[in-house]
Amino acid sequence: MIFEGGENIGDKKLDVFIYDTTLRDGSQGEGISLSVNDKLKIAKRLDLLGVSYIEGGWPGSNPKDRAFFLEAKEIDFQNARIAAFGSTRKPDTPVTQDSNVKSFMDLGVSAVTLVGKSWDFHVSKALETTLEENLSMIKDTVMYLKDNDIEVIFDAEHFFDGYKNNTDYAIEVLKAAADTGADWIVLCDTNGGTMPWELEEIIDQVQKTIYTPLGIHVHNDAGCAVSNTLLAVRKGITQVQGTMNGYGERCGNADLCAVMPNIELKMNKSCLPEGNLKYLSETSHYISEIANMPHHNTQPFVGKGAFAHKGGIHVSAILKDSLTYEHINPEDVGNNRRVLVSELSGLSNLLYKAKELNIDVNSYDNETRKVIKQIKELENEGFQFEGADASLELFLRKAFSQYEEFFQLKNLKIILEKNEEDGIIAEAMIKVTVGDQTFHTAAEGDGPVNALDNSLRKALTEVYPEISEMHLTDYKVRVLNSKSGTAAKVRVLIESANQKEKWSTVGVSENIIEASWQALVDSINYLLLKRRQN
Amino acid sequence: MIFEGGENIGDKKLDVFIYDTTLRDGSQGEGISLSVNDKLKIAKRLDLLGVSYIEGGWPGSNPKDRAFFLEAKEIDFQNARIAAFGSTRKPDTPVTQDSNVKSFMDLGVSAVTLVGKSWDFHVSKALETTLEENLSMIKDTVMYLKDNDIEVIFDAEHFFDGYKNNTDYAIEVLKAAADTGADWIVLCDTNGGTMPWELEEIIDQVQKTIYTPLGIHVHNDAGCAVSNTLLAVRKGITQVQGTMNGYGERCGNADLCAVMPNIELKMNKSCLPEGNLKYLSETSHYISEIANMPHHNTQPFVGKGAFAHKGGIHVSAILKDSLTYEHINPEDVGNNRRVLVSELSGLSNLLYKAKELNIDVNSYDNETRKVIKQIKELENEGFQFEGADASLELFLRKAFSQYEEFFQLKNLKIILEKNEEDGIIAEAMIKVTVGDQTFHTAAEGDGPVNALDNSLRKALTEVYPEISEMHLTDYKVRVLNSKSGTAAKVRVLIESANQKEKWSTVGVSENIIEASWQALVDSINYLLLKRRQN
Repeated sequence: MIFEGGENIGDKKLDVFIYDTTLRDGSQGEGISLSVNDKLKIAKRLDLLGVSYIEGGWPGSNPKDRAFFLEAKEIDFQNARIAAFGSTRKPDTPVTQDSNVKSFMDLGVSAVTLVGKSWDFHVSKALETTLEENLSMIKDTVMYLKDNDIEVIFDAEHFFDGYKNNTDYAIEVLKAAADTGADWIVLCDTNGGTMPWELEEIIDQVQKTIYTPLGIHVHNDAGCAVSNTLLAVRKGITQVQGTMNGYGERCGNADLCAVMPNIELKMNKSCLPEGNLKYLSETSHYISEIANMPHHNTQPFVGKGAFAHKGGIHVSAILKDSLTYEHINPEDVGNNRRVLVSELSGLSNLLYKAKELNIDVNSYDNETRKVIKQIKELENEGFQFEGADASLELFLRKAFSQYEEFFQLKNLKIILEKNEEDGIIAEAMIKVTVGDQTFHTAAEGDGPVNALDNSLRKALTEVYPEISEMHLTDYKVRVLNSKSGTAAKVRVLIESANQKEKWSTVGVSENIIEASWQALVDSINYLLLKRRQN
Repeated sequence: MIFEGGENIGDKKLDVFIYDTTLRDGSQGEGISLSVNDKLKIAKRLDLLGVSYIEGGWPGSNPKDRAFFLEAKEIDFQNARIAAFGSTRKPDTPVTQDSNVKSFMDLGVSAVTLVGKSWDFHVSKALETTLEENLSMIKDTVMYLKDNDIEVIFDAEHFFDGYKNNTDYAIEVLKAAADTGADWIVLCDTNGGTMPWELEEIIDQVQKTIYTPLGIHVHNDAGCAVSNTLLAVRKGITQVQGTMNGYGERCGNADLCAVMPNIELKMNKSCLPEGNLKYLSETSHYISEIANMPHHNTQPFVGKGAFAHKGGIHVSAILKDSLTYEHINPEDVGNNRRVLVSELSGLSNLLYKAKELNIDVNSYDNETRKVIKQIKELENEGFQFEGADASLELFLRKAFSQYEEFFQLKNLKIILEKNEEDGIIAEAMIKVTVGDQTFHTAAEGDGPVNALDNSLRKALTEVYPEISEMHLTDYKVRVLNSKSGTAAKVRVLIESANQKEKWSTVGVSENIIEASWQALVDSINYLLLKRRQN
């Protein structure tokens, strides 16, 4: 029997239902801490993308998650149903007295994901109760929730480990949930150590006795979470649990940003409203911003480097036909092709970039070869143009004599002072010239770079008012040779934006302020250059 | 026929041969740039770990890789054979005249990995030659190398895509290499888009007609590289190509740090000398240091967070039995269990940590609950104790009144100055007291933090000479709320070390110098505390 649940989740009809647990399992990942407001923002965005379920949290365990459910009730979600997570009733406690179960009722949730133990070892070790009582806990809770018209998704925790250890009991647990009316039974590889062939074989066995619609929930401890999920879908499982960007406890959950495009593009099954897959990259980046986690360049499908080509032969083939080194069209998932200019890259990469910038480059002359050599030298010093397109453009225009400086620095001074327990006060003084005009100003800031930024803008906005439209959106520092600590070379990457555009610039120095200065100057120069080109 | 090659690679006898291409395919990853010296260091470390082959680079394509092979010849590798990478002879060029082939001969390499096209589309699009000529290019080159007693590993580029597109031709390509004596035939999923079930089915078909020992080389564009590699091993493939930490073009290659422990611990097959798997985490971290790439916390098996437990119920179960939430013993791969203290963590995490630090904590009193609340508040402000064990210890000792300050700051001042094209000069002045003694000093530095570090050490070493033994080994800056650019809050993580130990500290402020100061002070205080405890 395949679950015909499409009709009651929005008006979609899907082959596979995506159950997102970024807000619960995802937030158990190291370094992730989401406020109620963050959670609401993410939920709205996931709904726009079109997932079928959003697990909001564990309202019985902490006040923040409770607050989320109260606020989420006021939102009119278009595609997703909000599910609350919680465990079966506690041992030897009537279900009506259980604080978790009470929280579901108080909040009036319409879907509950109930986690129950399916590994006998966990029942005795972690729950410290009998196998029999565990079954009653499951039955009582499922029945009670179903009596109250709540959709019940039963997460069989540690199911695969449980099956390997005590097959009969693991199946009995599933039956306890199925027989009492659970709408879904989700097979969980909670510790993430199951091999693909084990998972396939166990699903085959489960499908012989359990007729409730099945879901899959796997962790990535063995590096197999994405494939294990896909293999389960291939076996006919219709609910997929995972998190955006693979966030989650330890090595994370199955990354929905890889699972969803594989399901749609490789398996030709639908899991999002038609046409929505192209919002995937944007959504992935948005969530990493909100979660304040770095977005990994190499992340399949959505990473900034997922379609970035560096090797010279790759680039020369890509120039002929992009299919040669790309498994899908990057636009299908809202990503872009990029060609990296680096020391490994030959002439082809530079020519591609120059073409993109409308710089007329003769591929055979000495000037071009000199520029490639200069890039290699700068990268040797620690510059990384791969992540700083605006600095690369400025560099190329300078190298091919298509650029003039907008201003000249004469002098800058920064003073930082701190007394006993007070914070540091930062003040910057700056003298710049534009043509024959001199501007000499001072400004404070929340730190030396901010003070510098403020004083430079103050000095320049009289001549270049467009500077007031731009602002810095990110500031990253990387130590290049960590062996010598604070005296090591650092690379600063600055991201700037105005209403229309974002651009990145780079600076390298042993002095963090010098490196920041270089990137700051590039970011302003780039804006000025663009305004003159348009 | 299974390759009995164990005897001529060191004196090992292995079920699966690991072929590491970190130095070639890995260095095509975005952001990776290895010097000759870096490459030699990595090769030596891979040899110690015990991989069977190390692909050193493409000596025919750039002088750096050539230099590597010249220097590597002088090294007595214990476990690994060094292989050179290169393509088959160019179209319409005699093999003896081909520059790639010549470079192999000049360098006197003993193993060559020869990449040839097995997708007809690539032959016509990228090589711009005929299908027939491509077969001749493969045959001529394999034969020539075999005549010169070189081990030939034939990498069938884009084999899986080629097989799907033109099965007969793809198989003909393999036969061309097999018939002319290639020692290995490696099936490559170069674009990384092959699904696990496709890969299994295609390998089944290949094994019906090709009897040369097979290898597998897959990319991670669909997020399936690790499983695809394991599924190939399960089919009987005996050579596995991949990179450490999964570095490589676009989304990277199969991560050997996940593949190797799965082969040994899950499949019970040997791929490293006995007992060497426990050096895996160390080697993985070492290589990320040399490559100057961040080591991902969530990386399976070797990530700092791979056995880190955050959810309260996970921790309380782990305290009872670690098997409850761990798929393997972390020590088997040289990793450690960690318990994270964060806002999600309940009492159990704090108690675990306190026990580790020998702090006597009464789990039921108000003081303990107050400390948990304080941690949550600090984490809300942006502190992240998860990555700063030393700061967490200082915080806990202060909170439970087990700590006294070693020094007091009275005043600090930093002056930064820059003229026209000069770099920035940084100078710090500092006044601190230790008991009733006052120290007032000044020092220069390569940047404001370095100047601060220098002047603080200068002020304190007279009273605390042990400070001269420690040094900063890493300095990281993270912008917490990137929306407001340089005025945003920043978190500074500092890693310090002396001869024996490494420790990490954290500081948070809107001012990068203030945040650095906090982390710097913690790092010195931690050393002083430890020296008094021993």
